Amino acid sequence: MRLGLLGCGNVGSSLVKLIFENQGSIKEKSGESIELAAIVIRDPKAFRPNWIPKELLTTDVMAVINDPSIDVIVEVMGGIHPAKEYVEAALLAKKSVVTANKALLAESYFELEELADSVGRDIFFEAAVAGGIPLIRSLRVSLAGEKLKRVIGIVNGTTNFILTRMDEEGLSYDVALELARQLGYAEADPRADIEGIDAASKAAILASIAFGKKVRFKDVSREGITKVTASDFEFARRHGYTIKLLALCERLFENEEFLDVRVFPALVPKTHPLASVRDAFNAIFVEGDAVGELMFYGRGAGGAPTASAVLGDIMDAAHNLRFGSTERRIERKDVVMAPVERLSGSFLIAVDVNDAPGVLAQVATVFGENGVSINSMEQLGFMNQARLIFLTHDSLEQDVINTLAKLEELDCVRSLRQAMRVLSEED
Amino acid sequence: MRLGLLGCGNVGSSLVKLIFENQGSIKEKSGESIELAAIVIRDPKAFRPNWIPKELLTTDVMAVINDPSIDVIVEVMGGIHPAKEYVEAALLAKKSVVTANKALLAESYFELEELADSVGRDIFFEAAVAGGIPLIRSLRVSLAGEKLKRVIGIVNGTTNFILTRMDEEGLSYDVALELARQLGYAEADPRADIEGIDAASKAAILASIAFGKKVRFKDVSREGITKVTASDFEFARRHGYTIKLLALCERLFENEEFLDVRVFPALVPKTHPLASVRDAFNAIFVEGDAVGELMFYGRGAGGAPTASAVLGDIMDAAHNLRFGSTERRIERKDVVMAPVERLSGSFLIAVDVNDAPGVLAQVATVFGENGVSINSMEQLGFMNQARLIFLTHDSLEQDVINTLAKLEELDCVRSLRQAMRVLSEED
Repeated sequence: MRLGLLGCGNVGSSLVKLIFENQGSIKEKSGESIELAAIVIRDPKAFRPNWIPKELLTTDVMAVINDPSIDVIVEVMGGIHPAKEYVEAALLAKKSVVTANKALLAESYFELEELADSVGRDIFFEAAVAGGIPLIRSLRVSLAGEKLKRVIGIVNGTTNFILTRMDEEGLSYDVALELARQLGYAEADPRADIEGIDAASKAAILASIAFGKKVRFKDVSREGITKVTASDFEFARRHGYTIKLLALCERLFENEEFLDVRVFPALVPKTHPLASVRDAFNAIFVEGDAVGELMFYGRGAGGAPTASAVLGDIMDAAHNLRFGSTERRIERKDVVMAPVERLSGSFLIAVDVNDAPGVLAQVATVFGENGVSINSMEQLGFMNQARLIFLTHDSLEQDVINTLAKLEELDCVRSLRQAMRVLSEED
Repeated sequence: MRLGLLGCGNVGSSLVKLIFENQGSIKEKSGESIELAAIVIRDPKAFRPNWIPKELLTTDVMAVINDPSIDVIVEVMGGIHPAKEYVEAALLAKKSVVTANKALLAESYFELEELADSVGRDIFFEAAVAGGIPLIRSLRVSLAGEKLKRVIGIVNGTTNFILTRMDEEGLSYDVALELARQLGYAEADPRADIEGIDAASKAAILASIAFGKKVRFKDVSREGITKVTASDFEFARRHGYTIKLLALCERLFENEEFLDVRVFPALVPKTHPLASVRDAFNAIFVEGDAVGELMFYGRGAGGAPTASAVLGDIMDAAHNLRFGSTERRIERKDVVMAPVERLSGSFLIAVDVNDAPGVLAQVATVFGENGVSINSMEQLGFMNQARLIFLTHDSLEQDVINTLAKLEELDCVRSLRQAMRVLSEED
């Protein structure tokens, strides 16, 4: 089994090391010998770790893709272009493809899957969501007989690290982000992480797999962690919550079937299994009709865990090539995303108001008139103004949106400080 | 794809329901239609749920096994005989087999796997360990490229329920067991659970899969929870631990490779992810060289979760039959179990002694003379006697065994109350 590797960054070089170290056990466990045939790089002058065999390096990607002696192409370049064109070319050349490229898959998964089917080859991507955690194959194969209701995940290690430090050390968002940068958890330009873009790509892939639908990045509503404050954490701690950036994929029924797929920061009860997922770890909570609650926990990023998942995929692809079989095909249907009128949830709403008689009544009236029922409220005095923090009962999201709009119109309201979902105890 | 079901108890009848309810999504997700062809039962007069189609019931097991129109045999009868003979007959009749029978697999896994290979069919058993948790396929396929170091699991829901009630409500062992019986978590004869027999079967299967070795039930050293007392929990709580029944599968190197596979109650630090696994839930903690730490969590028993795992296996078997492929074969080697001289660990040791001058010195001397270093000690006075509770540093197990033997010879020692392993913080 000969392998062409596209990309030799963190994941690529970890994979090379893993293949060299585990030749023996790979052969034992799978009966396959995996031979690294070529490593495609962009810059021949870039620094490479000393275990990278120099004689395999090449910049001629099409020669590798079209090499008839190569069976499997591994794409760990990242980015949508030209990765997409290379993956397409590899499939057309009848190679099976293993990729860890979440951005590519969140845009083009269905096209690539259909192309793979049409040429009788596989496209595997266990590493694209939650790194080394064996989640994708579990959803596709082990849980194939299950009607899944909901998947909730912590799928971005950078933001989970930042939120953990804010919770446990009381750091401000800016200080926690700077710490994440210094420790290498956040990139110089952290936007893909902190704005929920990375998590939204993973949510699209997860929802597609879990529900057999065509969910794309653009279908995912998305809110990052940039507005989460130290005072949100203070409130959360006092009330038995922490705050996590969640990727939610949920199936809703009301005459017809909708999906709700979104990324958002939320208050999570300390008693929920997701609350104890700390620092850069990932975890995915899965709920099914028959199987009940499942959780998968582990390292969601990093060269070695990601390379481990890629190698598992390579061995699966090799096995299928030997038998002339492929991963089973799912008939994916077009998705109908849930309209906002169908959504509901509990919310934390914080508003800064002038501290004057009658203000609380005015604010509370807006909630009541818009059909949002208040579960608990606390008032914190700040000089001549006050902050009112409400936890609502389960409410229609549209009613909450209307409430927020009306609150902003009130003269006594200085600013709307926060509106954040709450994962309920029963969740 | 036609299915012959052997057994229609809790798991069997849940599976029938699941297949009927999910016909549509099974076809969508796999392209296969699954048709239930026959249900083999022992007692035609026994009560059956109303969704069981009476016209499919039969007592003629060999007619079903040899029916050429049947593709897959599902064995959910339990017990080793005659289940083993039926599974063998099914494989010889060129059926793929799905089983949830841990006792059978812990005795005969390798023979059955070899038989399946020789006839070009599959034997799947995701449900045999940790019920609905997708663990076996993750270890076999997703983590195939990984060198696993250790697997530690809470794999028996009954004992975990009992231990959780003892910890959280301060119940005695007997009262907690009675509660488990009343709530249906423990059987009238609970020995298979409380003596660690069920967990040892699962440990043998897990170790075989994780390390590619032939590990059988008889290779697993085993200690149940019957000697765990309320006072052990008091001590554990005071020192930041809980007590769990663990199934440990570990690879040890010292010139050659050994496996240590055992089931035992242990003190687990509250900060360890396994400590928060409550009641009848299961969780399996997996450590690999590249992937780092993984944990799988969910319902380890019950009709519906187990049936969900069986159905996933059926769909995988059907897929392979269509392509003429099979699950990959692993060359399993004979196992060398670790001799006790190679094992080490920290221990809790409790002894009741006469409360007299010089006794502590006498006892402590025995530890020292046998090379067991004490981490912490506490003394509880009871009338004219006292209980001494020691936590040791990491010690050779043989030294601990020698210490215990010498302690029992001391005149001042009334009884040895407890000797229990401690999962260390770094574990």
